Amino acid sequence: MRVAIVGATGAVGQEFLDLLAHRGVAGRPVPPEALRLYASPRSAGRRVPYAGHELTVEALPEDGDLHVDVAFSSAGGSISKAHAWSWAAHGAVVVDNTSAWRLDPRVPLVVPEVNPDAVQGHQGVIANPNCSTILALVALAPLDRAFGLTRATVATYQAVSGAGQAGIEELLGQTRAVLDGGAPEPAKFPHPIAFNLFSHDSEVGADGYNLEERKLLLESRKILGRPDLALSATCVRVPVVRAHAEAIHAEFAREVTVDEARAVLAAAAGVRLVDDPAANRFPTPLEASGQDDVLVGRLRADASRPGALALFLAGDQVRKGAALNAVQIADLL
Amino acid sequence: MRVAIVGATGAVGQEFLDLLAHRGVAGRPVPPEALRLYASPRSAGRRVPYAGHELTVEALPEDGDLHVDVAFSSAGGSISKAHAWSWAAHGAVVVDNTSAWRLDPRVPLVVPEVNPDAVQGHQGVIANPNCSTILALVALAPLDRAFGLTRATVATYQAVSGAGQAGIEELLGQTRAVLDGGAPEPAKFPHPIAFNLFSHDSEVGADGYNLEERKLLLESRKILGRPDLALSATCVRVPVVRAHAEAIHAEFAREVTVDEARAVLAAAAGVRLVDDPAANRFPTPLEASGQDDVLVGRLRADASRPGALALFLAGDQVRKGAALNAVQIADLL
Repeated sequence: MRVAIVGATGAVGQEFLDLLAHRGVAGRPVPPEALRLYASPRSAGRRVPYAGHELTVEALPEDGDLHVDVAFSSAGGSISKAHAWSWAAHGAVVVDNTSAWRLDPRVPLVVPEVNPDAVQGHQGVIANPNCSTILALVALAPLDRAFGLTRATVATYQAVSGAGQAGIEELLGQTRAVLDGGAPEPAKFPHPIAFNLFSHDSEVGADGYNLEERKLLLESRKILGRPDLALSATCVRVPVVRAHAEAIHAEFAREVTVDEARAVLAAAAGVRLVDDPAANRFPTPLEASGQDDVLVGRLRADASRPGALALFLAGDQVRKGAALNAVQIADLL
Repeated sequence: MRVAIVGATGAVGQEFLDLLAHRGVAGRPVPPEALRLYASPRSAGRRVPYAGHELTVEALPEDGDLHVDVAFSSAGGSISKAHAWSWAAHGAVVVDNTSAWRLDPRVPLVVPEVNPDAVQGHQGVIANPNCSTILALVALAPLDRAFGLTRATVATYQAVSGAGQAGIEELLGQTRAVLDGGAPEPAKFPHPIAFNLFSHDSEVGADGYNLEERKLLLESRKILGRPDLALSATCVRVPVVRAHAEAIHAEFAREVTVDEARAVLAAAAGVRLVDDPAANRFPTPLEASGQDDVLVGRLRADASRPGALALFLAGDQVRKGAALNAVQIADLL
């Protein structure tokens, strides 16, 4: 299987390199000669270490032929918007990490633990959901299957890696400046992020929800096949490097006990329960960083509604929230 | 009016000093000769600048006589538990910042914008609510009065100042260590806080809720006089210095529109609306720091339930969440 990474020099691109070299696709590491790296003309010619070799980053081909079987695209929505179907027409199955095609009815939107069958009948482009959606659904989908999810309210704690390498550098740079007695100087983000947090920096719609929150709602509905799902999210950027957390209240078609929910989650693919009240040990972004699993804990009966549940989760935004989920989609092909 | 600060050398004690010197009680700055500072024997003898003078910190008197009319107590729950009623028996009205007496039926629990009348008939001890509760209720109480709050789910983003000066030093020290390539070394908190967050570090009960979450529920019920209020919180410590934020979903006895809610909040004492979707400008801890008002924004119709509301707030945990609220209680005396 010949594989391309489009956007190979970004934070998610780096994660793809690590995954393809060590984990591989369908159980096999991708050898250097089967891997092509694409990026912007600015990055073309850069040499990137991979599995003991060096690969040269190429500019995207003008004719749309990536010369691979599978292309992981994480170079931004506008690139995918412009080129994804052209790459597909030249024989690549495009696993697209951007938001460009997620809600397009021609395009399966897939979390492999949740709706692997959706990959069947793809037309050349498969979409990888938004990071917050992936992490939430790894925990919520098994509960939905067991009990029928009717409503969820979500508050997110989102790492700066969601804005790529530039987001990480902005957090670290600003933090250094503040510790040295200086002022934070926002560049990538609209507000200071050092020792601060702010409502997610995506466009706010007429209904008051920002784009990140709307993705959580609309993508969840599509992936779960539940166009009626009621979900309201508050998405917040926090000064954390690379894993997101989410506090969720969930209601179901019937009253659910904590023991029932715990049994379902303990058996769920992609979930690791981290739920030790006696030691006050629950999911944290630091523990989730670099992990494949979504860590789930704080499982409790919602004190505000009989039979509802509250829980808290953390997952690596760059890994399961992006690159790993895409590679798992490729496993299915 | 003679005033004492018990716990004068802590983070909240410092805020009391600033408030008494500049804002004062009932419109009058407290002159140096009317102020006494108490702290642990370890801090006794320390000299503290105040309004152009220096005051000497005293150890707590053995006989319980603080020689003042009002005592602000923020030296910790065990000190208040042991001494508050003795201080009161010697003539001081104790405004207690700790959790020691908040749920005691003899003790009014007061947010001046919400239930000022509760001060009447106090028996010598008045309790200042938990910081998260104060901030939430400044926004929720006027909505409750107007529409009848029936249920709220809350996710908090809590600054390290909630754990006092030691919490602030731990965040800054750990962050420096991590930026220098070292590892965070937790001391005050059970988990790393630099570039991380974790479920609130208070004891977790049999129902899965931690003490901070239980305070939000039980104190809100007492302050609002609504023993039936349904509320579920997820309290989370984040790497922010001194202001808390909260994401709230609220349901009411009748369906509420955003315009109705905005009108109520715009007229509410202690609330400042910061709600500019076009500029993506909403409440942040940094903007809330040093402010008396609770900043409220992200006001929107809850997409998951007709007639419910979602909102986001930020407030200075040390100021309105602690010292200012206590001084406002003294205004009422």
